[in-house]
Amino acid sequence: MRSGLEEGYRNVGRRARDIGIMIGRLPPGPSNSLVDVPGVRVGQVTLIEGEGPLRPGQGPVRTGVTVILPHAGNVFRDKVVAAARVVNGYGKSVGLAQISKLGSIESPIALTNTLNVGLVMDALVEYTLRQNPELGLSVPGSVNVVVGECNDSYLNDIRGRHVKAQHVERALSVASADQVEEGAVGAGTGTSCFEFKGGIGTASRLVVSESGGYTVGVLVLSNFGRRADLLVDGVPVGRELAAVEPEAGEAGGSIVMVLGTDAPLSSRQLGRVASRCTVGLARTGSVVGHSSGDFVLAFGPTLTQVAATAEEAMDVERSGHIDSLFRAAAECTEEAILNSMLMAETTIGRDGHVREALPLDRLAETMRRHGRQVQL
Amino acid sequence: MRSGLEEGYRNVGRRARDIGIMIGRLPPGPSNSLVDVPGVRVGQVTLIEGEGPLRPGQGPVRTGVTVILPHAGNVFRDKVVAAARVVNGYGKSVGLAQISKLGSIESPIALTNTLNVGLVMDALVEYTLRQNPELGLSVPGSVNVVVGECNDSYLNDIRGRHVKAQHVERALSVASADQVEEGAVGAGTGTSCFEFKGGIGTASRLVVSESGGYTVGVLVLSNFGRRADLLVDGVPVGRELAAVEPEAGEAGGSIVMVLGTDAPLSSRQLGRVASRCTVGLARTGSVVGHSSGDFVLAFGPTLTQVAATAEEAMDVERSGHIDSLFRAAAECTEEAILNSMLMAETTIGRDGHVREALPLDRLAETMRRHGRQVQL
Amino acid sequence: MRSGLEEGYRNVGRRARDIGIMIGRLPPGPSNSLVDVPGVRVGQVTLIEGEGPLRPGQGPVRTGVTVILPHAGNVFRDKVVAAARVVNGYGKSVGLAQISKLGSIESPIALTNTLNVGLVMDALVEYTLRQNPELGLSVPGSVNVVVGECNDSYLNDIRGRHVKAQHVERALSVASADQVEEGAVGAGTGTSCFEFKGGIGTASRLVVSESGGYTVGVLVLSNFGRRADLLVDGVPVGRELAAVEPEAGEAGGSIVMVLGTDAPLSSRQLGRVASRCTVGLARTGSVVGHSSGDFVLAFGPTLTQVAATAEEAMDVERSGHIDSLFRAAAECTEEAILNSMLMAETTIGRDGHVREALPLDRLAETMRRHGRQVQL
Amino acid sequence: MRSGLEEGYRNVGRRARDIGIMIGRLPPGPSNSLVDVPGVRVGQVTLIEGEGPLRPGQGPVRTGVTVILPHAGNVFRDKVVAAARVVNGYGKSVGLAQISKLGSIESPIALTNTLNVGLVMDALVEYTLRQNPELGLSVPGSVNVVVGECNDSYLNDIRGRHVKAQHVERALSVASADQVEEGAVGAGTGTSCFEFKGGIGTASRLVVSESGGYTVGVLVLSNFGRRADLLVDGVPVGRELAAVEPEAGEAGGSIVMVLGTDAPLSSRQLGRVASRCTVGLARTGSVVGHSSGDFVLAFGPTLTQVAATAEEAMDVERSGHIDSLFRAAAECTEEAILNSMLMAETTIGRDGHVREALPLDRLAETMRRHGRQVQL
Repeated sequence: MRSGLEEGYRNVGRRARDIGIMIGRLPPGPSNSLVDVPGVRVGQVTLIEGEGPLRPGQGPVRTGVTVILPHAGNVFRDKVVAAARVVNGYGKSVGLAQISKLGSIESPIALTNTLNVGLVMDALVEYTLRQNPELGLSVPGSVNVVVGECNDSYLNDIRGRHVKAQHVERALSVASADQVEEGAVGAGTGTSCFEFKGGIGTASRLVVSESGGYTVGVLVLSNFGRRADLLVDGVPVGRELAAVEPEAGEAGGSIVMVLGTDAPLSSRQLGRVASRCTVGLARTGSVVGHSSGDFVLAFGPTLTQVAATAEEAMDVERSGHIDSLFRAAAECTEEAILNSMLMAETTIGRDGHVREALPLDRLAETMRRHGRQVQL
Repeated sequence: MRSGLEEGYRNVGRRARDIGIMIGRLPPGPSNSLVDVPGVRVGQVTLIEGEGPLRPGQGPVRTGVTVILPHAGNVFRDKVVAAARVVNGYGKSVGLAQISKLGSIESPIALTNTLNVGLVMDALVEYTLRQNPELGLSVPGSVNVVVGECNDSYLNDIRGRHVKAQHVERALSVASADQVEEGAVGAGTGTSCFEFKGGIGTASRLVVSESGGYTVGVLVLSNFGRRADLLVDGVPVGRELAAVEPEAGEAGGSIVMVLGTDAPLSSRQLGRVASRCTVGLARTGSVVGHSSGDFVLAFGPTLTQVAATAEEAMDVERSGHIDSLFRAAAECTEEAILNSMLMAETTIGRDGHVREALPLDRLAETMRRHGRQVQL
Repeated sequence: MRSGLEEGYRNVGRRARDIGIMIGRLPPGPSNSLVDVPGVRVGQVTLIEGEGPLRPGQGPVRTGVTVILPHAGNVFRDKVVAAARVVNGYGKSVGLAQISKLGSIESPIALTNTLNVGLVMDALVEYTLRQNPELGLSVPGSVNVVVGECNDSYLNDIRGRHVKAQHVERALSVASADQVEEGAVGAGTGTSCFEFKGGIGTASRLVVSESGGYTVGVLVLSNFGRRADLLVDGVPVGRELAAVEPEAGEAGGSIVMVLGTDAPLSSRQLGRVASRCTVGLARTGSVVGHSSGDFVLAFGPTLTQVAATAEEAMDVERSGHIDSLFRAAAECTEEAILNSMLMAETTIGRDGHVREALPLDRLAETMRRHGRQVQL
Repeated sequence: MRSGLEEGYRNVGRRARDIGIMIGRLPPGPSNSLVDVPGVRVGQVTLIEGEGPLRPGQGPVRTGVTVILPHAGNVFRDKVVAAARVVNGYGKSVGLAQISKLGSIESPIALTNTLNVGLVMDALVEYTLRQNPELGLSVPGSVNVVVGECNDSYLNDIRGRHVKAQHVERALSVASADQVEEGAVGAGTGTSCFEFKGGIGTASRLVVSESGGYTVGVLVLSNFGRRADLLVDGVPVGRELAAVEPEAGEAGGSIVMVLGTDAPLSSRQLGRVASRCTVGLARTGSVVGHSSGDFVLAFGPTLTQVAATAEEAMDVERSGHIDSLFRAAAECTEEAILNSMLMAETTIGRDGHVREALPLDRLAETMRRHGRQVQL
C-alpha cells in the first residue's frame, strides 16, 4: 500500500501547461489545481498490490480513494452551497438527490471504484458521526455523504472492493492544500482515458469581474473514451496515434468532475456553472458514451457566506459576468483531463493488462505538425 | 434478533380493508399487496435487541431491512423496466441516477435505516457478484444497486448501523411471494408515521382495460407526518386525536414508496404512474415536509417483455387507459400507508422512547362520527 | 363581451369558507385571495357571445383571459423570483424553460384557452414592448412572457381563438388588488371541474415564523376531474353525487395553479413550495389525469428584495419553517379549487352543452351526513 | 419578400465538406442535410425589406421562418417520437413541456425570431386546425405546436414581428425534401454566429450497426458566440481572426438544434442522442453563454413505427451501438454550425449594422497553418 503522504509529490509526467499546451484564455491559479480555491483540501490513498492473473477478491489491486474537503472546518455543521449534474447517468454516484433538492453538501466528497461505493459511503458516514457526536442522538440524525466512482476493472480486481474504511480515514487525515498529486493515484490508480492511462487531474482559473475576483478549480477522475477520439487542444492527436497504435480493446468508462469555487453563487447559479464542465469534456473528444457515468459535483462557499453576499451573486448573473465562470469551468475541465493523462505513468494491472502512458514524444510531434508550440 | 421467517406472519393489527376502510374504487388483488404482481418477492429481517438508554454503537436496536425482488430470476441478467421519482429529495437513497437515465433496474431493491445505506448497498453488490461470477472479470463490471432509507433514530441506535451484510443476505434468502408482513417489521421496525408507530405497509389494485388486465402493487416504508395532519380516507382523524393526545415531539421523517406492476410500460410511462404515488401520500395528510426524503421507486416487467409488447403500451397511453394505472398508484399508496400504521404494534425504543400504535377504537369512533362504517 | 370591470364583483355562489368548509389549519389573509400578497393585481376579461350550434370560428363564445401582475411596477425591469413545476405536462403553457433556468419572471402571467396561447403570448410581448421602448433597440431585446392555458372546448368555440390582443390589454388595464372575481369568469368562463362548472378560484394563507410573517396566495384555473372523484375537505361528495346524477361525458382537462408570496425565497426554495400545490390538488380528488396539463407557476418578491434578505431565506429553510409555507401552498390550492366550483354559475355553451354549477344543497346535505357543519 | 422557392437554391458560400473540412469520422448522407432522414421536409421564407435607420415596427426587416415537417403525412394524426433538451434555458421556445412528458411531437417545428414566437405559434395552430377539421369539435381539441427562436435584433427590426401567418403558411407549402438552403435564410436571415453572419446550417450522418442502418440529420439556427472563441475542427480560427479584426460589439445569442432520425428509438433513448448535440456545439467554441437560449428538439419515426420495432431499439442500446448515434449527433451539430456560417453572405441590417461573412481566405490560411488541408 502506498499513499500520497508516504511518497510525496511524484512528478512522473508533465502537466499540459508545462509543455506549452495552453487551454483557453483565462489565467490559472497559483498551483493550477482545485486547492487554489481557498480552504479546499485533497487527500488520496493509492492501493497497488500484487501482479499477474486476477484472483477475484485477492488482487492484483490497482485502485484507491481520493477525498475532497470543501473547507477546513466541520462541513456537516457549516454546509456549502452545491449543485450536481448528471451528464450521463450510467453511474453509481451517491448523494445527488439531496444536493439537487437542498442545494448543499454536508460531507467531504470521495471518489473511488464502482463496486467500492457502499463501503466508502459507510466510511464517510462513520467520519461524520465521529466528528459530530450529537448526530443521531438529538433526533433526527442523518447525513448525506457524496461519493463518485469510476470502473477500474480493466486493471484492478474490482470485485475485491479493496478500499476499506481505514483507507478513507487515511485519505481524510492526510488531506492538504498542497499541490494535488495527479495521474495514476488515488481513485485514479486503475482508470483509463482514451485507452491510455488516465486518473486524477486538476486545473484552476482566475476570473476577474466588476463584482470581484474568483477562483474556479476542477478535479477529475478520468476513465472514458476511445483512442481515436482524443483531441488535445483541438488537435486530433488520437486519430494519428490510433493509426500507429491500434485501439486497445475495451473502452466504456466514466468521468467524475468535481468543481469548487469561492464565487458566492446560489445553487441554481452554481449548477449552471457546473453544466459547463461538459463543454471541456466534449473538447477532449468525448461523445459522452452510453456506458459512461459522467457526473459533475460542484460546491461553493458556505451557505452562510453565500447568503451574506447574495446581492453580489445577483449582479454576477445579471451583468453576464457569470459567463467568465462558465468559461473557467470549461477550461479547467479540459485541462484537468489532459493533466490526468499527461501525469499518469504506464500501469500494468490484473492479468497483465497494460495501460500505456500517453506517449509524450508522439504527442509533441503531432501537435507541432498542427502548428502548436509544444516543448518537452 | 427476530426475522419474519422465524416468527411467521404476525397479524398484530388489522388491515384497513378488514375494518371497512375502503380506499378508492378499484378492486385489490388476492393478497392486496405488492406480491400480487406476478413474480415479485419480499423478504424482511427485523432487528430488535436491548432496551433502556441509548449507548451509541451498542443499542437499543430497533431496525431492519426489507428487500424486494422484481422477479424470480437473475435481475442483473434480466433487467426490469424502472423509473424513480424524487418527491422531496431530503434523503439518501442510492441508484436513482442510473434508473433515470437507462430506465431499468438490475438488482433487488433494499430498504433500511438512513445511516445503514452504505453497508446495505455493499451487501447488494456482494449478492450480485455472487450471482454473476463473470461480473468484473469480463470488463467492464458494474452493477447499479438500489437502496431506499428512512431515519429510525427516534427508537433505534441509528449510529450503530446494526444491519449487516448477513441480514441483507438473509432477507434475500427468505424472500417469498407469501403475504407480506406489515407494521413494525424489516426496515420499518423503528419508524414512525404521523407520530404513531409506522413501518411497512402494502396494497394492490387490479386494473382492467381494453388492452388487458394489469396488477399494480405498492409497498411503503412510512416515517413521516405530524399527528394533527393524519387523514384516514378523508376523515381528519389526526385533528381529533391530537386534541386528546398531544403531539409527541419530533416529527421529520421520510417515505419510500416501491411500486411494481405487470403492465408493460416504457420507463417514461412507468415514471408517470410512479408520480401518482404522491397523490396517495397527500391524501393521508402529508404536506411532503422539508426534511422528508420522499422517493418513489417503480419497476415493471423485464426489458425483453416490454419490448415485445410495445404496441400495447402505446395503446394504453393513447387511449387514456393509463389513467386507471394512475388511479391504482394513488389508491395503493394511500392504503399501504394506512396499513403500515394499522398493522404496527406499539414500540418502545432507545431511551424509553415510545411510539404508540394508532388507537383502533378511537379511530373507529372518529370515523363513525364522520359517517363511515368501520367495524373492529 | 363582458368584463369584470363592467359588471363589478358578481357574488353568484358562495365561497367555501363562507359556508363553513374550512380547509386546513392556517388562517387566510384579509380577502382570502392571491391579491392578499402585497402588490399583486389580477385582471380578467370574460367573453360570452352567441348560443346554439357550434360554428367554428364564429361561436358560441365562452372564454376569456385572466392576468396576474406580480407587482405594481415594471416587471420587466424589476423581475421577480420565480419557479415552475410541471405536474403533468400534457399542456401548452409557455415561458417555463427560462423560469426554470433563470429563476425569475419578467412579465405578467396570463391564463387563457389552449388554442389562444399564441395570440395572448404575442399580446404580452406587445405590452412589454410598449412599456419598455428601449427593448430591442439596445441589442439584444427579448422578453420571456408566461401564459398558462386550459381547454374550454366543451362549452366554447375554441377553434375561433376569440381572445384578441385588445382583450389582453383590457385585462391588464383593469387589473386591481380588489377582491378577485371567481367562477365562470376570465380564462375560466368555459372550463369544467369534476364535470361541474369550474373556472377561476383563489385563496390565501398567513404564515407566522420566527423569521417573520408571510402571505401565500394561489389562484387556479380549474378544468379537470371526473365527477365521482370529487372530494370536499375529504368527504367523497363526488361519489354520492355521481350516484344521483350520472357522469356528464367527456372529462379530460387541466389546471393551472399560480402561486404568489412575499416570503423572500430563492427560486430553488420557491420551487419546493410550488410543488406542494400538488398536495392540495390531490386532496380535491384529482389523480392528475393523463390528458391533463397540470402546471404550477410561482412568483415571489423582486430579485433585488430577495437578494437583500437572503439570510432570512436561509433561516426559513434551515429551521424547517419552510414547512409552514408548504402547508400554505397545499391549503390554498385545495380551497382555491373548491372556490372555483362553488362560485361558478351553470353555463350553457356551444351545441347546448351544459355545465351545471355544483349543487350547493346536495353538497351541504352530503357534508352533514359526514359529520361536517355546513351552512348555506 | 424573398423565399427559398422564388429564388431557388443560392449557393453563396461553400459548405465545410466542400472545402475539405471533414468533421468526425462518420459518412454523411447523400445531401448531407436533415432531409436525408426519410420523409423529412424543410421550408423557409426569408424576409428582407428596407435599409437604414431602425424605425420600430417598420423595418428594416431581416428575418424569416424555417419549418421542419417530420414526415409527409398528417403529423397531428401520426405523431412522431420526440425529445427536447434545454442546454441553456434563456430562451422562449414553446412546446417543450408536452414533448418531455408524452415523448412525442404532433405538429411541424417552426423556427423564427424571438418576439415572433406567439404569432408563429398561432399560425401553426391554424395550420393544424385546417388539416384536422374535427379538432376542437369532438371534445377535447388541442394541439401542442413547437416553435424555436433566436434573437436577430442586431440586424432586424425585431419589435416589428414581421413574420405573419401567411409567411408560415408559405414556408409550410413550399417545404420539400430538396437540398436545404443554408446561411442567411429563413429564421437565420438576421442572426449572427461568433460575431460573423450565421443562420441556417445542416448536416447528416449515416450509422451502420448490427441492428441496421440509420440516418441522423441536424438543422441548426445559429446565433451565438464571441469571435475569439470560434474553433473550426479544433483550430482556434477565432483567436487568430480576432487579432486582425476586433470583436464586433454585442454577442449574446442562442442556438436551436433540430435533430431528426429514422432510428426507431424510444423518447428516452432519443433524448440521450439529443443531448449529444451539446458536444458538437462545444467543439465550435461555445461555452453555452448565460444569455443564450440553447435548445435541442429531436424527433424520430412515428409512434406506431417505433412501437412495432421496440426490440430493435432495446438492442441498439444494450449493445452500445447507440454510441454511434451519439457520435452522429455530435458530428452533425458541429458541421451544421460551420455550414451555417460558411454559407452565409455578409448582411447589412438596421442602422447600418453589418455582419460580415466568415472570410474564407483567412479561414483557409489559418487552417493550413495548423496543418489542415483546405481548398477553396
